[in-house]
Amino acid sequence: MNRNCLLTTMLFVLSATVSLSLLAGQRTAPLPPDYSSLAHQLKDIGLKEERAFEFLRLLTSVGGRLTGSRQVERAVELASHLMTELRLDEVRKEPVTVNRWVRGQVERAVLRSRKLGKKKVNISALGNSVPTRPGGLTAGVLEVHSFGELADAGPRAKGKVVFYNVPMDRTLLDAFSAYGRAAAFRVRGASEAARHGGVASLSRSPTWRLDSYPRTGLMTYDENYPKIPAAAISPEDAETLHRWLGEDPELQIELELDCHSLPPVLSANLLGQLTGLEKPEEVILLGGHIDSWDLGEGAHDDGAGCAVAIEALRLIKALGLEPARTIRAVLFMDEEFGGSGGRAYAQSDNREKEKHLVAFEQDRGGFLPLGLAMSDEVRGLKKLKPLEKILGELGIHWLKKGGGGVDIAPLATQGVVLGSIIPDSQEYFDFHHSARDVLNAVHPRQLELQAIILALVAYFFAQEGL
Amino acid sequence: MNRNCLLTTMLFVLSATVSLSLLAGQRTAPLPPDYSSLAHQLKDIGLKEERAFEFLRLLTSVGGRLTGSRQVERAVELASHLMTELRLDEVRKEPVTVNRWVRGQVERAVLRSRKLGKKKVNISALGNSVPTRPGGLTAGVLEVHSFGELADAGPRAKGKVVFYNVPMDRTLLDAFSAYGRAAAFRVRGASEAARHGGVASLSRSPTWRLDSYPRTGLMTYDENYPKIPAAAISPEDAETLHRWLGEDPELQIELELDCHSLPPVLSANLLGQLTGLEKPEEVILLGGHIDSWDLGEGAHDDGAGCAVAIEALRLIKALGLEPARTIRAVLFMDEEFGGSGGRAYAQSDNREKEKHLVAFEQDRGGFLPLGLAMSDEVRGLKKLKPLEKILGELGIHWLKKGGGGVDIAPLATQGVVLGSIIPDSQEYFDFHHSARDVLNAVHPRQLELQAIILALVAYFFAQEGL
Repeated sequence: MNRNCLLTTMLFVLSATVSLSLLAGQRTAPLPPDYSSLAHQLKDIGLKEERAFEFLRLLTSVGGRLTGSRQVERAVELASHLMTELRLDEVRKEPVTVNRWVRGQVERAVLRSRKLGKKKVNISALGNSVPTRPGGLTAGVLEVHSFGELADAGPRAKGKVVFYNVPMDRTLLDAFSAYGRAAAFRVRGASEAARHGGVASLSRSPTWRLDSYPRTGLMTYDENYPKIPAAAISPEDAETLHRWLGEDPELQIELELDCHSLPPVLSANLLGQLTGLEKPEEVILLGGHIDSWDLGEGAHDDGAGCAVAIEALRLIKALGLEPARTIRAVLFMDEEFGGSGGRAYAQSDNREKEKHLVAFEQDRGGFLPLGLAMSDEVRGLKKLKPLEKILGELGIHWLKKGGGGVDIAPLATQGVVLGSIIPDSQEYFDFHHSARDVLNAVHPRQLELQAIILALVAYFFAQEGL
Repeated sequence: MNRNCLLTTMLFVLSATVSLSLLAGQRTAPLPPDYSSLAHQLKDIGLKEERAFEFLRLLTSVGGRLTGSRQVERAVELASHLMTELRLDEVRKEPVTVNRWVRGQVERAVLRSRKLGKKKVNISALGNSVPTRPGGLTAGVLEVHSFGELADAGPRAKGKVVFYNVPMDRTLLDAFSAYGRAAAFRVRGASEAARHGGVASLSRSPTWRLDSYPRTGLMTYDENYPKIPAAAISPEDAETLHRWLGEDPELQIELELDCHSLPPVLSANLLGQLTGLEKPEEVILLGGHIDSWDLGEGAHDDGAGCAVAIEALRLIKALGLEPARTIRAVLFMDEEFGGSGGRAYAQSDNREKEKHLVAFEQDRGGFLPLGLAMSDEVRGLKKLKPLEKILGELGIHWLKKGGGGVDIAPLATQGVVLGSIIPDSQEYFDFHHSARDVLNAVHPRQLELQAIILALVAYFFAQEGL
């Protein structure tokens, strides 16, 4: 089988090289028919070799990759070696100064009720949270389901742990819409609680899954109110706490966290590319973020996006193609803890001698790709129209306005067209920001399909321009 | 939350009942606009309650459900009670005589090489296989990759275990196409081996996944040749055997199986329905098969299809709808071991007083639904055209010619239009016919989406006819 496989691959490479050099003279023609054959070759090589998953294995091997941690710096080194091994052009780092926060050793929450007894519940400090005082705090609990309900409760919040028990809306089909609404309590919950005299905030983990895993994530403080500790509680324990409060509104919770912030450190975005043959200064960017939360291995979020960007370049190179414009993979630092990597990239002096045409960001997990979203109707979606049928054969069922993400958003003001391949979202929040986001939660073929599609679209824009 | 939920549901039921009774007089109009609101109500109730998964939990609780086994009969009883509890109409069994085969206690395969030593490999008897003699057999191994290669090997097959080492083609996007080609060696491999003097057949498990699980499945004998034992080998062990043969072509394999056939027994298909108000004799059928292989729990194959059929009826009933024509769930017996259930259903005297319009069969796993296939362009696909946009909002990206399955195929000659919701196939053969096909391999929302779509389409045909 291996010998056959090699031979087939070589034939593919040969035919691709021939057909694409034939193609060089007619770049202004409607659609060079060879994009279809290119798509098949990318698919065949990609699905046979499934290298995106191998790249993801490498990235996740370091464990969670919190911004500013030794692990994430190790991941940058591993990815840099990988890019060099793959003979990408100009593999280099660009500096990013990042804020740093560490979880510490203690995360403890216990319900205590005279009526019901004692129960440990699974919590996780939210990123950026201050610690409790050593030994923790003990307080009553106020359960609310909206900021309005908290405001109405007014003085009843005083001295309490405010418990936001808002699950993700199950009736929405798009998980990200449901997440956005539920995650607001994680982000703003502590300051809203402090505003009403609360001593800590506990928010239900935003997921459709009823399990015992807390989901961490970034929270922010409003400087107008005291900084109080903030943690996420697992969905099952949120249900338990709700039931216990129903039976004993006087129950107390003990909460102890020793997470804390550290001074900013110097970190980096990692770049590797296929330098354009004709217009090297014009760039098609493929982005993911290399940092992650620390509870799992950051496999779906966003090792997947990084693996897919690297694999897209490898696939193009494996076919012997040399793009007219530069196609660059960027593994951004610090998407999760403030987005400093995306801003640093957009503002870097290095951008001055470059012109970015299109930037893709994959940060919705390594699931089955279903659609393709771009920020610009004319220069994005309409431009891609000739690929619609070919993309359909690869499982891309729709082209819509949308796309983008935290890391490439700062490029928008420079007129760059943003885009994303949109995968199925049904399972994403089963894993997101939790201990479940590990390598084996990702399906090698679904991940590879993202890389194949990204390679096709990136190469198309590199040849056709905008 | 629960009180709100109940209230919302009641309002939905009320509005559905009102809008659909308003609708009764205008059934010949192009498209009653209320199918859109119906779709939303089905989605909201379905995704909130996720009952399909609960039904699947019940079915899989009995373990593997081999045709003719005590487990499958227990599953029929549980499903019958469930249908009664759900207040379906006319819950009843129809008799099916089924062939019976049991795995026995012994499944053992060991590689023995003077050069490389000894290694146990994971195998599983194929359904319908004869046993080895007690104590097993020991023989050399001939590895082939096609029936042509076996024919070319001619006398070299004599006295050997013929090892079909044909993996599923990774470059195909549709898993069922790749499966069909690879599974031919499972089905016909033993007789082809016996024809050339082979003493047993060992076929690589058809899956894209490289793991240690053998996949069972039905094999058949050509009566012209001796019946020799047939087993599947896990993909990892197929790779091992291939490598060992490369280093030591003289290696021997010990193989012992004590599986055997038993006399036919009386079993049953299980039916439950919403009897049509206006044309009760006209039937829309929703089918899945309740039997399964014995290595796992038959969760994807095909507990999922059964759960989805029952849940579709429950959803329609939960909205207070009374369909004009009968919508019937049929849990077929014996899809896996010969299809006697499907044939018995089509041939039953009970069919004489009925007219089936459309029959759906779900037997491709409980994964994310992506498309809808029907056997008839005009009476199926064209008829559904008005639902296209609504189905699109539920994630059905295409309507195509196709659909059907082993259990409903016998109805085709009676002019029944066949159909299937087509889910994503990338993961199906990770689980199929193996010990991995268990409840937790199924995602509750993906499964529920199938039920929601099936409910909508079934109700549409029940109201609109053909």
